[in-house]
Amino acid sequence: MAASESQLIERYFRELGASRPDTVLGIGDDAALLRVPGECELALTTDALVEGVHFLPDAPARALGHRALAVNLSDIAAMGATPAWALLSLNLPAVDHGWLQEFAAGFGALARRHQVALVGGNLSRGALSITVQLAGLVPAGQALRRAGARAGDELYLSGSVGDAACGLQLLRGAAAGSAAESAWLQQRFEYPTPRVALGEALRGVASACIDVSDGVYIDATRLLVASGCGATVEIECLPLSQPLRHALGSDAWRSALCGGEDYELCFSVAPTRAGALGAIAESTGQAVTRIGALHAGSALTLTAAGSVMQFSPSGFDHFGD
Amino acid sequence: MAASESQLIERYFRELGASRPDTVLGIGDDAALLRVPGECELALTTDALVEGVHFLPDAPARALGHRALAVNLSDIAAMGATPAWALLSLNLPAVDHGWLQEFAAGFGALARRHQVALVGGNLSRGALSITVQLAGLVPAGQALRRAGARAGDELYLSGSVGDAACGLQLLRGAAAGSAAESAWLQQRFEYPTPRVALGEALRGVASACIDVSDGVYIDATRLLVASGCGATVEIECLPLSQPLRHALGSDAWRSALCGGEDYELCFSVAPTRAGALGAIAESTGQAVTRIGALHAGSALTLTAAGSVMQFSPSGFDHFGD
Repeated sequence: MAASESQLIERYFRELGASRPDTVLGIGDDAALLRVPGECELALTTDALVEGVHFLPDAPARALGHRALAVNLSDIAAMGATPAWALLSLNLPAVDHGWLQEFAAGFGALARRHQVALVGGNLSRGALSITVQLAGLVPAGQALRRAGARAGDELYLSGSVGDAACGLQLLRGAAAGSAAESAWLQQRFEYPTPRVALGEALRGVASACIDVSDGVYIDATRLLVASGCGATVEIECLPLSQPLRHALGSDAWRSALCGGEDYELCFSVAPTRAGALGAIAESTGQAVTRIGALHAGSALTLTAAGSVMQFSPSGFDHFGD
Repeated sequence: MAASESQLIERYFRELGASRPDTVLGIGDDAALLRVPGECELALTTDALVEGVHFLPDAPARALGHRALAVNLSDIAAMGATPAWALLSLNLPAVDHGWLQEFAAGFGALARRHQVALVGGNLSRGALSITVQLAGLVPAGQALRRAGARAGDELYLSGSVGDAACGLQLLRGAAAGSAAESAWLQQRFEYPTPRVALGEALRGVASACIDVSDGVYIDATRLLVASGCGATVEIECLPLSQPLRHALGSDAWRSALCGGEDYELCFSVAPTRAGALGAIAESTGQAVTRIGALHAGSALTLTAAGSVMQFSPSGFDHFGD
């Protein structure tokens, strides 16, 4: 079973992902060489999944391959950029060919779907941990940032939120609704869908954007802080899936606000661009929901039935209390 | 002592490294935004240090900060590229402010020396593991590759080899020569010097290049395989430091050939360019040593006192037997 790092890379990772004409040199040298068009900026991000922190010890390898890339695609989507090239650093406790094959299948399928080439990385012995670096391209000056929202803009979410945190609870053995709904919620955690096409379409339409990885409350607040605005979110407006409502009942909104790992986009749009946003939702087939409005100030205020709620968040933070 | 990931990043990493005019947006959004000149290609690499695999459990944090960046700078140097932007993924078992301060000091000092901006990354709980991704710039078409060496070219090494592996043995408690020499060898392991200026200067002069991370035997063989050549290396020509000779005596050449972690450059130069190489050695102040010559064939042959040696290598390979 012993195999060298180069043999493993050759076997599982060399041809993974899309092949791109702007990849001058891929896996197999000291670094990859890539061609960035002069009219574009490079968007660069990295995110890691650590066993016991971001996934359960028996998580399926295929889901991990998907998710390790998806969380990075989500960051690139939140910038309005188009993903292009990935690097993969994998720490593995031991060589397990079945695991590697499944992991590569999950990573590769998502990479091909988004035209991402895997151009480098490394394998090392160590506690299971997966770090992906992703580079994307965005026309110069057009990236979506967290800063840029203004008082008067409206706040939106893509898809539905809270599903992934509920799915994780189900994977941990919590009670479920129907088997089909339970499976759907678990899939929302294990196979998140990065909103890449939506992010690209929002260039020139959204005034600010962030991806929801630590819960709507925390991530929307980050957008507000960067933009120097406050906002009021009506919890009745939060987009909740039917399976989430069935699983959590009247507590579904808590999972929506504070649950992490949704990888939806949270973004602001001026009211004058509402029509453009509607056209984007139609052309991308991506549901978007208005959850509130921005105003002067600096905090995220929640209302229920028109009254301000007292609320103390406890979203994901990997070094929090 | 509890602190959020964002607070830790703000405190230790936000202003780390150089500030660069081509960084459009650094730490603090979903991705960094970077300007790549149209006449350049982007060189992209990643390398990780894992506790117990690449460093000893009590390794000083400052050295780890230096080394995690240095091993990536060495890859960029081997491409003849100029380093520009880094991302850092850090898995830490717990928040240790003293450790973080020292780590950041080691990383930051080396980053500033090479005009590298730290533009993103993440912190997570987990077994200690450090993954750095580094992006560099190289004029289009001029990168140094492993492929490109030809029969008749001569093979060179920068600096001296074998020191780092010997230094690691000393850190593990092996016997030493003098205290000063022992400290110097340990420093060669803990604070490797990436040969960035040499790599840049070798563009247009070297026909192929690789950095020596797994030992001269393994890495020179990789260059030969990629170039479709053989080579003969005279072991008397290997550049050995005085401290290495004192520490290992007549076995010094084994550490030179098979010890890893040197981060010197191994490169080939056509005999007609020997003068240009001499000028580079002088202008960069970087010693380079001819260790052999390339010829038709496919293997690395070693000679001692003019006779071919039988030799079985056992360099570093993190998944090897």
